[in-house]
Amino acid sequence: MAGTDKTKAAAQGGPAVILVDPQLGENIGMVARAMLNCGLVDLRLVRPRDGWPSRQAEAAASGADEVLERARVFYTLGDAIADLERLYAATARTRDMTNVMVTPRQAAIEVRAAEAAGGKVGLLFGPERSGLTSDDVALAGAIIQVPLNPAFSSLNLAQAVLLIGYEWYQAADETPARVLSMGANRPATKAELLNFFERLEEMLEDTGFLRPPERRPAMVRNLRALFTRADLTEQEVRSLHGVVSALIGKKRPKSG
Amino acid sequence: MAGTDKTKAAAQGGPAVILVDPQLGENIGMVARAMLNCGLVDLRLVRPRDGWPSRQAEAAASGADEVLERARVFYTLGDAIADLERLYAATARTRDMTNVMVTPRQAAIEVRAAEAAGGKVGLLFGPERSGLTSDDVALAGAIIQVPLNPAFSSLNLAQAVLLIGYEWYQAADETPARVLSMGANRPATKAELLNFFERLEEMLEDTGFLRPPERRPAMVRNLRALFTRADLTEQEVRSLHGVVSALIGKKRPKSG
Repeated sequence: MAGTDKTKAAAQGGPAVILVDPQLGENIGMVARAMLNCGLVDLRLVRPRDGWPSRQAEAAASGADEVLERARVFYTLGDAIADLERLYAATARTRDMTNVMVTPRQAAIEVRAAEAAGGKVGLLFGPERSGLTSDDVALAGAIIQVPLNPAFSSLNLAQAVLLIGYEWYQAADETPARVLSMGANRPATKAELLNFFERLEEMLEDTGFLRPPERRPAMVRNLRALFTRADLTEQEVRSLHGVVSALIGKKRPKSG
Repeated sequence: MAGTDKTKAAAQGGPAVILVDPQLGENIGMVARAMLNCGLVDLRLVRPRDGWPSRQAEAAASGADEVLERARVFYTLGDAIADLERLYAATARTRDMTNVMVTPRQAAIEVRAAEAAGGKVGLLFGPERSGLTSDDVALAGAIIQVPLNPAFSSLNLAQAVLLIGYEWYQAADETPARVLSMGANRPATKAELLNFFERLEEMLEDTGFLRPPERRPAMVRNLRALFTRADLTEQEVRSLHGVVSALIGKKRPKSG
């Protein structure tokens, strides 16, 4: 395959998901949904038991029609994986074989690296009940096992695809780990914050709250620290001004 | 709450999963299964629409009965979260509110840190169709949003619980990222490998494969490198000896 073709193949939506002998159309549909959640679109079906296309698959895909429409059916695993350079087998069973075992996170790193080099990668999943045969697993360079509660680790097909696809998506995602989202608001400036602190402290001074004087510095520090920690927006500082005015009864003298 | 009680609470199976106004029992059962996959056991239901307990939940839990049996029902969110120190809201919708947004991976780090300090944490999920109300979200210190394909990001309830629970599990899991699993076998020693190389090269020498002599060093290096890269077991080296013998026709002279 020429370099440009390879790059194009890799760009077409990440690794292929290959289902060997899938049984229920419903499960294929749920796999398609999980794939599209993760930006994966290359679905390959080896001998789907109940035929293809499948109304059950369409109903279960919840709108991931794009994946079902592109899905291809093969009669041998060899045909389904012919164009791939690297294959990972997802299986929960431990086997009496010598195999490389990787976590989904590690697999994601490796798949991304192979794709960056222009290679096409496949993720192999077995039938719902029995899982992959050892003969199928022998064609994969590594086995992906999802670390989960060892006393209760069985996942359905779509969940296994979702977790592995999720890791593939995360491996190139740049969402900040923690961020303050404030819509149309903007963060308060320190001047706005200090203005509020000084007004609050002046009012508390009037009420006698900040006595005795030797305790004042610590009390002021604690109040300033708690409001600072909240990462207030400009609008929230205005709200707090209003709260203070309301509590002190200054803003709107009661009528009557 | 006393320090020992707090530690005990945190040790009881990770963060609580709180479902507000869940509709279908089936979905509650699938949530229970996803929770137990991730080692989570504290399920709290706020006003389950179809009542509790639920046969549909039991059928869908696929054996995660332990979680359903321990589940508690509450009539207000306030009651359901009363003992918690920290609350994360899972929601896909962006809101016109000032909020801290975290990824599931970041949330997992924070939850583990809070638990290590003896605190009990909750993960809040809304009803299937509508999701959490903004009033409910306002009680959470941060919103968890799962980074997924922005054009197709909707997850069902159990999948959202699975991905967030999965990250919580991974945050303390020590499975090696990549490891060679070889069952009862042991890795070949370098002496066994060199012995095989030397025998193979001697036989290839006899056949004339390693000529002309100036190409020999590179050919030998390439063969040695490919077999070394395969991380062979002792048994596999013996198999390869057998393969070489068979190919050269030395091992079992044909009868007749």
